[in-house]
Order: sequence, then structure tokens, then C-alpha cells
Amino acid sequence: LSPEKTTGVMAKSSEPNRSRTYDPRKPHITDTPMTKANWYKHVNWLNVTLIVGIPLYGCVQAIWTPLQWKTAVWTILYYFMTGLGITAGYHRLWAHTSYSATLPLRIFLALVGGGAVEGSVRWWARDHRAHHRYTDTDKDPYSVRKGLLYSHFGWMLMKQNPKRIGRTDISDLNEDPVVVWQHRHYLKVVLFMGLIFPTLVCGFGWGDWLGGFIYGGILRIFFVQQATFCVNSLAHWLGDQPFDDRNSPRDHVITAIVTLGEGYHNFHHEFPSDYRNAIEWHQYDPTKWSIWVWKQMGLAFDLKQFKQNEIEKGRVQQMQKKLDQKRSKLDWGVPLDALPVMEWDDFQDQAKNGRGLIAVAGVVHDVTDFIKHHPGGKAMIKSGMGKDATAMFNGGVYMHSNAAHNLLSTMRVGVIRGGCEVEIWKRAQRENKDVQYVKD
Amino acid sequence: LSPEKTTGVMAKSSEPNRSRTYDPRKPHITDTPMTKANWYKHVNWLNVTLIVGIPLYGCVQAIWTPLQWKTAVWTILYYFMTGLGITAGYHRLWAHTSYSATLPLRIFLALVGGGAVEGSVRWWARDHRAHHRYTDTDKDPYSVRKGLLYSHFGWMLMKQNPKRIGRTDISDLNEDPVVVWQHRHYLKVVLFMGLIFPTLVCGFGWGDWLGGFIYGGILRIFFVQQATFCVNSLAHWLGDQPFDDRNSPRDHVITAIVTLGEGYHNFHHEFPSDYRNAIEWHQYDPTKWSIWVWKQMGLAFDLKQFKQNEIEKGRVQQMQKKLDQKRSKLDWGVPLDALPVMEWDDFQDQAKNGRGLIAVAGVVHDVTDFIKHHPGGKAMIKSGMGKDATAMFNGGVYMHSNAAHNLLSTMRVGVIRGGCEVEIWKRAQRENKDVQYVKD
Ligand code: HEM
Ligand code: HEM
Ligand SMILES: [Fe+2]
Ligand SMILES: [Fe+2]
Ligand SMILES: [Fe+2]
Ligand SMILES: [Fe+2]
Repeated sequence: LSPEKTTGVMAKSSEPNRSRTYDPRKPHITDTPMTKANWYKHVNWLNVTLIVGIPLYGCVQAIWTPLQWKTAVWTILYYFMTGLGITAGYHRLWAHTSYSATLPLRIFLALVGGGAVEGSVRWWARDHRAHHRYTDTDKDPYSVRKGLLYSHFGWMLMKQNPKRIGRTDISDLNEDPVVVWQHRHYLKVVLFMGLIFPTLVCGFGWGDWLGGFIYGGILRIFFVQQATFCVNSLAHWLGDQPFDDRNSPRDHVITAIVTLGEGYHNFHHEFPSDYRNAIEWHQYDPTKWSIWVWKQMGLAFDLKQFKQNEIEKGRVQQMQKKLDQKRSKLDWGVPLDALPVMEWDDFQDQAKNGRGLIAVAGVVHDVTDFIKHHPGGKAMIKSGMGKDATAMFNGGVYMHSNAAHNLLSTMRVGVIRGGCEVEIWKRAQRENKDVQYVKD
Repeated sequence: LSPEKTTGVMAKSSEPNRSRTYDPRKPHITDTPMTKANWYKHVNWLNVTLIVGIPLYGCVQAIWTPLQWKTAVWTILYYFMTGLGITAGYHRLWAHTSYSATLPLRIFLALVGGGAVEGSVRWWARDHRAHHRYTDTDKDPYSVRKGLLYSHFGWMLMKQNPKRIGRTDISDLNEDPVVVWQHRHYLKVVLFMGLIFPTLVCGFGWGDWLGGFIYGGILRIFFVQQATFCVNSLAHWLGDQPFDDRNSPRDHVITAIVTLGEGYHNFHHEFPSDYRNAIEWHQYDPTKWSIWVWKQMGLAFDLKQFKQNEIEKGRVQQMQKKLDQKRSKLDWGVPLDALPVMEWDDFQDQAKNGRGLIAVAGVVHDVTDFIKHHPGGKAMIKSGMGKDATAMFNGGVYMHSNAAHNLLSTMRVGVIRGGCEVEIWKRAQRENKDVQYVKD
């Protein structure tokens, strides 16, 4: 059952996201190994220009362009707007449909998202769905397994084999006129929203045409790109894995700060259709806050949220997994069923002949080396030797701690035939039922 | 089997720690309820004077006694020395025998410990052993169950019924000549080490007789008392319980700072004969550091330490307990054995008649309400309806996340007779074995 066969709703991912010169029948450049002679053919020069070249040009220009404070404020503001275009628009709205948006909000997000210069919604969401569906595999377009820098922007700077990217269903996006329109007019949108619009604001607003272009346009693009790229690199590399550690996504507050709240990425990969990335109120997720405000304004609706019960189940299972790993590394003493069986008389004989044997719960323990270390004193522990000390040990004389029980189990040397109270005890142990104390 | 009968090594705890006027046959004042007429008989006036009266007097005196910086430094130094007398001497050496000390160190600790004015080693250690042995019960001399202030110093300010304090074995202390000597000459030790000695140091050292008496003597006693009292109050009230939550002891860094490192009290109650209270290098335990330095100097030896394996076992068990509590509060769906059994044909019929039924792993799920929410799209989930979608769901089409498996289990409505692959699957589920991914 391959995905191609089971469904007809799959968009042909080869078109129209690809350049027109692409012919799926010819061997792709990425199928030939990189050499001294052909390396430049592996490089995606358009992207190198957009992602590295122009920002460098902007940095140089910035040296002799004075930064006016109004331009600075606008740049930061527009940085957040275009960033939100990616996180709240491209990512949570279109790639994951984690909420619905009215037409005005969709147009706004498609515009400012375009201003971040990271491709069209359609192209971005298709790759991103593949990233979720095939995380860490060869079909993941920005798999962190290929290196941190590759997942950050290497995948855009080098040519990729279009065949290798996993296929995904983007039929819903083809039905959204805003997405289709933005994809069709992408170059115009990018030029206008990325460069012209921020320049116009600063030019008409306070006469700073050059500053608007350099700071609000080029450098802002650079920062917003690098920040959102971190979702693919840093978020798969730095932090904890509270929900699932089988794949690379991780939670970290630093990533969240850099990426407008997309840093709780382990949660996000586990619950991708949740409109939140951070679920605690104190975690930084301005994208979530924005969506929530839009909802109050009537611009967003149908915010999807996984039930807390489902989220906690995932967390508990992951904690259990980590705990089991820890437990398996510890020495829990010889398992009961691997111990030799001893006769009661034999046990008493050996104890009389000087071996420090104590029976507790039908199990014989050799405490010889422990007598002088016993925190309750030598006399106490000696008083149990050659006897069934179950009652003494469990409160008759002293209610030993859990630690003492653990220690005891490391001293096992045999089980007594017949078992004494062992059956009752073993069952209680197994069920983890202990005598009830006051609970704190 | 009562402790009195099993052992003859128990010290008669009624003597000679008690005042001579005490007659165990007469009813004790604490056996009569407190009234307006007799409340003053319930108060231990000697202790009120020592713990509240004299410190108050010191505070008043301090108003017109200038504090010289040399006196201040000495006071702080002597504060630490007398504090260590209690924590490293009274507590870890004598009450818990967590290490051994040479005669010079024992004399030093008995002297500076006496300077803290908290009773003799013998009296202190007996009560403290009862506190560990009967923690939180009526036999615990400073049970926090009777209130935070009671455990702090109420138990000393009010008279206590000597019969109620649990008996403990202090035969080892009776064999230590330093302990016996300190107990016998306790009043002299207290007067000299508590007041005279610090006064002499400041007087002969830099002529500050009054300052030495007020600051180095009285106020220092007050602070060292309050600080060490916190081990019985704060340490049973504030913080985490990483090793056992059946009793009150808790770990907290604030308690540790106040008490020279005795703040990891949950650990301490679980592993009382360990010379450490803090086991991590970065935790604050100057008492442990001092003992370690004395060992390097040849003054202390036989430092006892629980094996890391035993400590981690305790931690893992407590984590498991907390996890089980969390798990039991969550909804894990109808248990498999509580589901009705369904025929395969019946399942298919119902699915054909429009009920959104999908079989996965031999279990029938009603996904009707979920179809429109399915993150993989409506078409996908519909393609599994009326079928055994086990393979599709588990990687054939899409390898669903752990969260998806959890969600699925909430939609259970029946099991299919015969079970399909159910037996294999159930076993794998139970053993928590999942298909292996690359691990992070
Ligand atoms: C058989 C192996 C034994 C082991 C491994 C063992 C272990 C321990 C440990 C670790 C403690 C420290 C407190 C705690 O963690 O609960 C302790 C205390 C004690 N044990 Fe045992 N014990 C053993 C046998 C006995 C027996 C047979 C008796 C009495 C007949 C006894 C009487 C006590 C008492 C009275 C204390 C309290 C000491 C105090 O804090 O005053 N123990 N034991
Ligand atoms: C029977 C109940 C089903 C449930 C509860 C369910 C649940 C989910 C969930 C929670 C996701 C989000 C990603 C994840 O958490 O793994 C998902 C994604 C997906 N599901 Fe299902 N699913 C079901 C049935 C199916 C079936 C029968 C198919 C295919 C025949 C299918 C195909 C997919 C695909 C392809 C995705 C990936 C979406 C993407 O990220 O591109 N699902 N499903
Ligand atoms: Fe990701
Ligand atoms: Fe995502
Ligand atoms: Fe305590
Ligand atoms: Fe203690």
C-alpha cells in the first residue's frame, strides 16, 4: 500500500512548485556526486543570493546608513509582523490547519508572510508537511540527521532532488484562493512586501527612504529568515524531549524566544494540529497569544487543542520510558526465581554454625558482612539470626525504610521451601501496596 | 515482641537524662489537660529562659553595645564552629555514627557542640534516634504533626511526658568517655563554651569584653539555636521528597543554607547513616565538607556512604510511585477486556451502514466524530473505514505518533472475535516494545 495508490487526493508535488526546466525523466544533478569540476552546479545560486548575498550587501550598506530611531522601531515591528506571517500563517494556519481564519486575516498573513521571503505558502506548507510526516528520514526535506547547518539553510543553498522529498496531501491548500493567488503572484508579493512596502512606510512616514530599504527591508529579511530557520535546526537539536524521544524534535526556551514561540517543538511534533506550541501560561509563545487575540477579535475561529488528558498520557508514557531505562541500569539483587531452595532445618543449622542468615518473607539473607554496619546496632540484627524475622523487620521491632528493604534484597541467598508468609508478602510487594502512613 | 523484651542492651531512657525529682510512678503534668489555672505548670521555664529570655536580653543589650568588626568576624566564625558541633558532632557523629572520630576531634566537637546550648550529646542523640525511629508518630519527640512551631522549639518550651518519647539504644554512647564526661559536666561546659570562652577571646584578643559576651556569646547562641532547630521544623515542612513521601522529611536548599547542609532531609531520613546529607557536588553541605577535610587530616575515618545503586533504587521507586499516581488520574479508554466482542461481518455491516468504524489491531474504533478533525485529512481516514487498518495505521500509509495511538484507544467500541493480529500486538503493547527508530 503505497500512498500514491491509496489516494487520489494527493497533489502532484512535482508541479507547479518546480521550475519549468525540470524534467523528471532526466537524471537530476543531485544524482551525480559532487566534484571539483561540478560543485557549482550543486549550489542553488538563486537562494545563495537571496539568503546570503543580499544580507551581506545590506550589512555593508548599513555601515554608512544612519539608523533613525523611528526606522528602528518600525523595523522591529515589521520583523514581528513578517515573523508572525510565517509562524501563525504559513506554519500553524496553512501547514497544520490548527485553526481557521477569516478572509481578511488570511490576506494579511499571506502578505506579511510573503515579506519574510521564505517562498510561497504552498511551497512552504508542502515541504513542512513532508517534514512532519517523514521526520528524520531521507524524505524529510530538512532532516537534522544531515547536519545542523543543513537543516538550518543548507537544504536551500544546495540543490535538492525533488523526487526525494516525501509526498503529502495539499489538496486543502489548493482550495484556498488566498494561497493560490499568493503562489501565482509570488514574485510580486515578495518584492512589494519584502522591500518596497517597508521602504515606503519609512519614506513617506519620516523621509528615511534609504534606512527603510536597508534596515526595514534587507536586514529585517535577514533576521526574520535566520530566526524562522531555527525551527528546523535549533528546535531539532537543543533541549528536552518530554513527549517522545524516538525522533529529534526538542523543547527549549531559547528556541522559543528566537522563533516567536515555536520552540516547544517536541510538543509540536507530537501534537501538530494544536494551535499552541507552549501549553503552560508562563512559556513564551507570542504566536499562540496572537491567534488567541485574533479569536477575540472575530478574525480567527475553530482553534484546535488536544485534550489535556491526551497530552498528559504522552508525558506519562515518556517519563515511564525514561524511568524504565534508569531502572534497568540498577542492580536489584538476584531475582527470587533464580535463588536456590533451602529447607528450614538447613537454614537453622547453617545459622547455628555461624553463618549470618536471617529469613525475611520466606527469603534467606546472608547479613554476615552487614552486622557491624547495621544502623540499628549489632544486637538487634543478631537477634533475628536463624529466625523468621519478617515481623521484626516490618514493624514488630522496627518498621524499616524502603532503603532497608532494597538493601535487604541485595543480600538474598535462597528461598525457604514452603515459603512461610512469602506468598502473601510477594503479592503485596508486587502490587506495591505498603502499610499506609500519613501521606504528605 | 516488644523492643524491651528482645534486647537487654537498651539504655533505660528514663535515667540519667531526667531531673532527679522525676518519679515515673506519679502522674506527669502532661497527663492533665492545660487549664487557666495550671498552664504555667506545663511550661518548661528553664528552657523558656534559655531559648527566649536570654536572647531577648541580648537583643536589648545589643542596642547600646557597639559591634567591633573583629568581634563580628569572631562571632560568625564561632557561629560556624558551634553549629558544626551540632551538625557534624551531635548529629552525624554521635546520633548516627555515620563516621568515626579520633579523640581530639571528639573532644573538640563535644566542646563546641556544648557551646551551642542545645543539651548534652547524650540527651540530644537519644531524642534524635527516637525522632528517626518513630518519625511523625506520637513517640517522635519533635513530630511535625504537632505543628511547625512545636517541632521547631515548642517541644522544648512545653514540658514533655518522658514516657511518650520512644525508646532507643544508646549503649554505644555510654561507651564513649567523651560523651559520658560531657553529659556529667554539662553545666560547666555550657557556661564555659557558650559564654565565657567567646568573651575571653574578644576580651584578651582586642579588649572587647562586653561585645564578646553579647555578640559572641548570647546573640550567637540565639542564632545557632534557631538555625539548628530548623532541621526539625523547616526540614520536615519545606521542599521535595525524592526518596520517600510516606513521611514528612523534605529536601530544600533554603533549609540547607540555614542548617550548615542538613537541608537534604528526605535523603537523610532514608539514608541516616550516610555521612553526607547532600550527595551532589553542587549542593550546599559544609558539614560534609568539614568531615571530609578532617578525614584528609587523619582526624576522622570510616566515613559511611550508601552505595549509589541503593540511592538510585530509592529514587526510581519514588518516581515510579508518583508516576503511577499521575497515570491513575488519566483516562486510558475502556480496557480491552471490558469491550463487547463483535463479529467481523457485523463490523463490516455497521461500517457500510454509515457508522465510522475502523479496525486496528483487532479492536474496533468509532471514529465518526473524528473524521473531520483527522490531521491526515478526511480522505485518508475514510479509506480505512470497514477495514482492518492495522498496517495502514502503523506505517503502511503513515506511522502514527504515540499521541495518535493514545487518541485511538479513547475511541474503542469493541473487539473482533478471533482477534486478527490482536494477540501479537497486545503483547508488544504490554512489553512496551516499539519499532526501533534512531534514538536521541
Ligand atoms: C536483616 C537485615 C537487616 C537490614 C538490611 C537492616 C537494615 C537497617 C537499616 C538500613 C536501618 C536504618 C534505618 C532505616 O533505613 O530504616 C536499620 C535500622 C534499624 N534496624 Fe535493621 N536491618 C536488618 C535487620 C534488623 C533486625 C532483625 C532488627 C531487629 C530485630 C532490626 C532493627 C533495627 C532497628 C531497631 C533500627 C532503628 C535504628 C534507629 O534509628 O534507632 N534490623 N536497619
Ligand atoms: C483510525 C483512527 C485514526 C486516528 C485516531 C488518527 C490520528 C492521526 C493523528 C493524531 C495524526 C497527526 C500526526 C500524528 O500524531 O501522528 C494523523 C496523521 C495522519 N494520519 Fe491518521 N489517524 C487515524 C487513521 C488514519 C488512517 C486509517 C490513515 C490512512 C489510511 C491515516 C493517515 C494519516 C496520515 C497520512 C497522517 C499524516 C498527516 C501529515 O502530517 O501529513 N490516519 N492521524
Ligand atoms: Fe520540526
Ligand atoms: Fe510544524
Ligand atoms: Fe528529621
Ligand atoms: Fe538525623
